[in-house]
Amino acid sequence: MTIRIGLLLFPDLTQLDLTGPLEVFSRMPGAEVSLLWKTLEPVRSDRGLGLLPDMRLADCEALDILCVPGGPGQIALMEDAEVLGALRRLAPGCRLVTSVCTGSLVLAAAGLLTGRRATCHWSSLDQLALFGAEPVAERVVRDGNRITGAGVTSGIDFALAVAAEVLGEEAAREIQLQIEYDPAPPFDSGAPRTAAPELLARVTERIAPFIARRRAASEAAAARLG
Amino acid sequence: MTIRIGLLLFPDLTQLDLTGPLEVFSRMPGAEVSLLWKTLEPVRSDRGLGLLPDMRLADCEALDILCVPGGPGQIALMEDAEVLGALRRLAPGCRLVTSVCTGSLVLAAAGLLTGRRATCHWSSLDQLALFGAEPVAERVVRDGNRITGAGVTSGIDFALAVAAEVLGEEAAREIQLQIEYDPAPPFDSGAPRTAAPELLARVTERIAPFIARRRAASEAAAARLG
Repeated sequence: MTIRIGLLLFPDLTQLDLTGPLEVFSRMPGAEVSLLWKTLEPVRSDRGLGLLPDMRLADCEALDILCVPGGPGQIALMEDAEVLGALRRLAPGCRLVTSVCTGSLVLAAAGLLTGRRATCHWSSLDQLALFGAEPVAERVVRDGNRITGAGVTSGIDFALAVAAEVLGEEAAREIQLQIEYDPAPPFDSGAPRTAAPELLARVTERIAPFIARRRAASEAAAARLG
Repeated sequence: MTIRIGLLLFPDLTQLDLTGPLEVFSRMPGAEVSLLWKTLEPVRSDRGLGLLPDMRLADCEALDILCVPGGPGQIALMEDAEVLGALRRLAPGCRLVTSVCTGSLVLAAAGLLTGRRATCHWSSLDQLALFGAEPVAERVVRDGNRITGAGVTSGIDFALAVAAEVLGEEAAREIQLQIEYDPAPPFDSGAPRTAAPELLARVTERIAPFIARRRAASEAAAARLG
């Protein structure tokens, strides 16, 4: 059995949103994983990593699993008719329609999370409500065949959940052992609920201008969605 | 203050060994991160991800932090005089000499872990002893200015420890919050100590031929090291 998995690769994405799940997906027996973008030219992440797409989005006929990662470039995607159109074209044939981090806002802008429970990076979780989705502050959220992961590193937990859904828990556990995913963070500051209030306030204040820009883009995208 | 960080990029590396730490390092204020390889041509990971080097290894004059990721391609590096020579040339000027996963075997083959405590992917940890290093079954191991991470996803814990060492704990905690590193694995099978014995036996048996090939290469590299 072949499992066709497509991850959207786009300029200014947060690379670990994609590369975490990719490491898990590419170890799933039977998986055929493609990185999809408009062209086959190298794409640069938000912090400069150069990545090569495998397939043009327009050439992708069908997928079993669609996954949209996030990152600052997600703002441009929310107003990109070609990308949103491709997501709308592919999603109905997918077994699972998924995202990591702020990729959920792109799915939402394509109308693919309306009325669904979903998650997102903590900084932008509330923006899902602009699109009629229900924001859920959990690391991996499932609603029907939509599975969304929270910020960046959530993509690893998310991808193991996807692997378990498609291949069974035992196969997912094998992958977990292969990638030695036995996390031991040196600190406990990885979520708003665990970070010190001063730390959370400092980070929130620093990113506020960017989050406001994302919000304006989400509002505009939600208005276009109608 | 600029912190010059160089990660070795090479054919058939395990991409998450590199991309996990890269996400953390590239968020360190003042960091200048480079992916180093012999040429600037795209490099393919063990499972096909195309990545672009930033700088030729021969053009890299000095680093503050050197990091060698692992993966199957690590076998070829252990017999690559050009790569081992570059590591030996750069290491003495580094504040930290580091690795993730089986990258530690490459550092060891360059003679950079002799007499040091170090770690590695669980499947190959014992091979460090061939080079006179002391294998330690911990997720992040420090000995002097050598910091080594265990398998694949350990690279995230490892990189946060490096960030804390260089910039202080508060800066590392900020990065942890940015990348929402609040792990919640759906299963508890990420290490030999937690995986079910049958699962561990099945994975160990399947990879045995490859691990034997790595061991032969490590033995040969250790013999050359003398």
